Amino acid sequence: MANLSLLLVAILALSLSSVIEATILKDFCVTDPNSLGCKDPKLVEANDFYFSGLHIAGNTTNPAGSKVTPVFATQLPGLNTLDISIARVDYAPWGINPPHTHPRATEVLTVLDGSLEVGFITSNPENRHFRKVLQKGDVFVFPIGLVHYQRNVGYGNAVAIAALSSQNPGVITIGNAVFGATPDISSDILAKAFQLDNTVISYLQSKF
Amino acid sequence: MANLSLLLVAILALSLSSVIEATILKDFCVTDPNSLGCKDPKLVEANDFYFSGLHIAGNTTNPAGSKVTPVFATQLPGLNTLDISIARVDYAPWGINPPHTHPRATEVLTVLDGSLEVGFITSNPENRHFRKVLQKGDVFVFPIGLVHYQRNVGYGNAVAIAALSSQNPGVITIGNAVFGATPDISSDILAKAFQLDNTVISYLQSKF
Amino acid sequence: MANLSLLLVAILALSLSSVIEATILKDFCVTDPNSLGCKDPKLVEANDFYFSGLHIAGNTTNPAGSKVTPVFATQLPGLNTLDISIARVDYAPWGINPPHTHPRATEVLTVLDGSLEVGFITSNPENRHFRKVLQKGDVFVFPIGLVHYQRNVGYGNAVAIAALSSQNPGVITIGNAVFGATPDISSDILAKAFQLDNTVISYLQSKF
Amino acid sequence: MANLSLLLVAILALSLSSVIEATILKDFCVTDPNSLGCKDPKLVEANDFYFSGLHIAGNTTNPAGSKVTPVFATQLPGLNTLDISIARVDYAPWGINPPHTHPRATEVLTVLDGSLEVGFITSNPENRHFRKVLQKGDVFVFPIGLVHYQRNVGYGNAVAIAALSSQNPGVITIGNAVFGATPDISSDILAKAFQLDNTVISYLQSKF
Amino acid sequence: MANLSLLLVAILALSLSSVIEATILKDFCVTDPNSLGCKDPKLVEANDFYFSGLHIAGNTTNPAGSKVTPVFATQLPGLNTLDISIARVDYAPWGINPPHTHPRATEVLTVLDGSLEVGFITSNPENRHFRKVLQKGDVFVFPIGLVHYQRNVGYGNAVAIAALSSQNPGVITIGNAVFGATPDISSDILAKAFQLDNTVISYLQSKF
Amino acid sequence: MANLSLLLVAILALSLSSVIEATILKDFCVTDPNSLGCKDPKLVEANDFYFSGLHIAGNTTNPAGSKVTPVFATQLPGLNTLDISIARVDYAPWGINPPHTHPRATEVLTVLDGSLEVGFITSNPENRHFRKVLQKGDVFVFPIGLVHYQRNVGYGNAVAIAALSSQNPGVITIGNAVFGATPDISSDILAKAFQLDNTVISYLQSKF
Repeated sequence: MANLSLLLVAILALSLSSVIEATILKDFCVTDPNSLGCKDPKLVEANDFYFSGLHIAGNTTNPAGSKVTPVFATQLPGLNTLDISIARVDYAPWGINPPHTHPRATEVLTVLDGSLEVGFITSNPENRHFRKVLQKGDVFVFPIGLVHYQRNVGYGNAVAIAALSSQNPGVITIGNAVFGATPDISSDILAKAFQLDNTVISYLQSKF
Repeated sequence: MANLSLLLVAILALSLSSVIEATILKDFCVTDPNSLGCKDPKLVEANDFYFSGLHIAGNTTNPAGSKVTPVFATQLPGLNTLDISIARVDYAPWGINPPHTHPRATEVLTVLDGSLEVGFITSNPENRHFRKVLQKGDVFVFPIGLVHYQRNVGYGNAVAIAALSSQNPGVITIGNAVFGATPDISSDILAKAFQLDNTVISYLQSKF
Repeated sequence: MANLSLLLVAILALSLSSVIEATILKDFCVTDPNSLGCKDPKLVEANDFYFSGLHIAGNTTNPAGSKVTPVFATQLPGLNTLDISIARVDYAPWGINPPHTHPRATEVLTVLDGSLEVGFITSNPENRHFRKVLQKGDVFVFPIGLVHYQRNVGYGNAVAIAALSSQNPGVITIGNAVFGATPDISSDILAKAFQLDNTVISYLQSKF
Repeated sequence: MANLSLLLVAILALSLSSVIEATILKDFCVTDPNSLGCKDPKLVEANDFYFSGLHIAGNTTNPAGSKVTPVFATQLPGLNTLDISIARVDYAPWGINPPHTHPRATEVLTVLDGSLEVGFITSNPENRHFRKVLQKGDVFVFPIGLVHYQRNVGYGNAVAIAALSSQNPGVITIGNAVFGATPDISSDILAKAFQLDNTVISYLQSKF
Repeated sequence: MANLSLLLVAILALSLSSVIEATILKDFCVTDPNSLGCKDPKLVEANDFYFSGLHIAGNTTNPAGSKVTPVFATQLPGLNTLDISIARVDYAPWGINPPHTHPRATEVLTVLDGSLEVGFITSNPENRHFRKVLQKGDVFVFPIGLVHYQRNVGYGNAVAIAALSSQNPGVITIGNAVFGATPDISSDILAKAFQLDNTVISYLQSKF
Repeated sequence: MANLSLLLVAILALSLSSVIEATILKDFCVTDPNSLGCKDPKLVEANDFYFSGLHIAGNTTNPAGSKVTPVFATQLPGLNTLDISIARVDYAPWGINPPHTHPRATEVLTVLDGSLEVGFITSNPENRHFRKVLQKGDVFVFPIGLVHYQRNVGYGNAVAIAALSSQNPGVITIGNAVFGATPDISSDILAKAFQLDNTVISYLQSKF
């Protein structure tokens, strides 16, 4: 029973440490898999602020032809409470990072290699589409919460680094959220929302 | 020229007053159409905190069969800097408030009349769909930034009041942002993102 | 002993989950009566975001002739960390919601039925009183921290919905805080503060 | 006309600079009486961060027998956007700082001289009264938004320094807000709220 | 084992309670050495908001000739989550509070006795030095994160009260951080950074 | 005069737009060199969210042997109000980015090329030094406000990308702030603070 209790404490701590807030009340608050809240500062070491391997290309052999390698607080516990994170994105030729939002972060994308078409769309009623083709060394901003995307428009692979203004920005891929929800959203709702007949909706739901 | 200058000041003030932040440094800061920042407190009156007409049903004669009547800071200038707003939503029978996000607010919906099916979908990778049928007097929470929707599943009209945690929550209707952007998102991107052929994408883009 | 430990964890968790902050680091963080911080997301269900019964009139048979039915994070655990809540307020004829403040929230009041006289007073040195009589469908804003009140000035019952910019706005009823504190504030202080003799102060303290 | 325009800009700037928010985006943002937003950094000088005279006793010859000397952003423009301010409080023998709230700040009070009875009252439903007699060198905390007071319980004058967690904390003296509002709150409302007859209410309203 | 579990909970709670955030969700959240998060409100007493002894001079018999007596959340548990703290600073004749930063707070300093030379330096590229000699009753602001210092320039002891905009502002004394780090920063780095030869760097590292 | 007024408005707007806060009240708020607050959304274009040239190596021919190329809101106006920015850092062999702090941001550094020794030092009283040698693809976190540095320890040039949690993080290079302030900090203060004689202090002040 005591072991159970310890286990319970540890499990609950895991979920707790990733929700506590970002106003800094200490120099840092490293997530600790075995404790509540911050890791004991005496046990914190340089490796808690360290992540390796971001030079390794992600595997883009998938329908979208792209791969995101996140370095969020889950991967880098020293980021906890510090309101920032990064990610590497790889794109096969013509690969896309499909339309998505980050509910908790603005994104700043820097192209390390290749050519990317990027864009975001503003909220109602304008739904303005801001679009740009980026080359190596170009930087673009996707404001918090807005739908945005990237596409490789060069001949080879493309690579970018994204900086995000949250330790856990969240990703809502529109296709997955709308057509791939578990359980499905009623097809009547989606048929009406997208002005498609139920057959196309069912097809879409089978794909996601 | 001086008049031009005054005009310029007034126009710029309009855009300024709606971006200044929400940490309250005064009792209130009413948006003033003719000034920079807050309306002169001496000229503020009770009507600046007042809006009327929320008992009037919105016109639901449109494809979605629903109508949102917002009471945001634009409609009610006394809300400026105060981090809250409300809206009335009317639904014709089988009307929907199609899948959308609020990039800057959580929503709490209260059903005043009728029956509503409501739901929201979590971010990747789970994309869990939380769904509930609500009756008169029922309340439901849609957390900030997540895709959500409502549908009238009763025999008559339905009415709800939404409370939102921002003076200007923003609305991103998925269909409009993805298929109705101005200018259009490249159909190649959408075809790949939704695994549909370009004909269906073009059809969708013609609808939004 | 192990059971005691589990119990301790559970009890402490209860107080903890209601103080952790509102910067969203996850899609949501439902208060869990049995755990530290957020309820395990796998166990979260639609009912955690749901509250029912707000169509039921509160019992106004009391000296003030009004009744507040709160839907705060305590009543609706899905509101935890989301910076918003609502309440229903019922008023008997001539019933009042007596002068009070919300130390942690702005309030937006919407009249569903009846006629209400409402007002708020600004801070020193002006102590300006903003006052308005509201009818069905009217909306009024009470800025955070300011003293405000409502009174039913119609012939029948009145009903309103309040939206508040905190999951736990707090209510400080002036009469209760000043004359009904436990233990009492020294009557000498109150006599001097309100320029009343000690007999009246003692009378007031006996009433609250 | 151009001069008018300049004047308008200057006047509006005054109200604007005191509402912009406190997230620091620059080293500092000194309020400038002649400009919009921050004073030109090139013109900022040490005196902008400086205030003198806090060793001078305030005049306590008034009914309450106390005097607050504020050092808020209005008095010390270098405090603008920095979320902190201070004040000196002087108390004649038996003088009180009557029950009041700060809608935008927690207060930390340090006694420099004399003996003070201090207290604060929590929100509904407990309305607990936390009370303490302080001597020279004692420190006490009044949490944000709660009703609190001080009284000189020594034989001579008392002096305290208050630190407040806002550049403009606001003061709502209960008596002034409830009985001294301009225009008056309806005496019927106050009679019902405080369970006093209208004669006593009118007497109170004449006093504030 | 159960006792161990209880102990673990208690120890972890200690570190947790000092990192949870400052958005007030309750009237207060007193740090509790024996629990997770806030002390049980029923057990909270006036002494939790109380600290004594700030009239006692600190011992300035040390190389700097100054002593800081902090009243942070560690010393005064009622400050937890309330974004403010204070400190007393004593200065022997010619004593200094050496150049340092507060990574989490702005400081407002009030001179209670004596004469102090004070200053702060802005960030790159200007590195402007704002400097002032203060007398009794003078107040000065040191904006968040900037390097600042004080020196006693009078004939006797000097005393000041500092108000800080965080419950745990942090102190980074430049000399200690740069030359007294544990383990040492490589002397090659410091030699290059300060354009000094390694002998002087080693001498400095031996002093801190 | 009218032109003067327009000019004044424009100049003041420049300083204003960089202090307004980061709580997003609109989809975005692009800094406009000719207006108050946000650029007119109708005139905003994709280029406002775009910066080019980050693939170009900075010139490291300087005593430190390093060069920072910032992409802050000043360089990329679309970052305004969005709480994030980036920078490229180039290092010649044995070049250093000398000890410095960012008063308004945490930094996440990613090595694109070469080998870097990096470290940060915690606040008093521990002054712990966390140190790590990084290779290509390695990531390291420097928590907000703490003193940190990098040094090229490879044989060739090194390049890194830094993500920062503010649109204008600020840089305080310790050497510049302490020994290069304008006007100088009194050498007596520095001599006492660093336990060096006045000759060495004067030498240092001549170098910065």
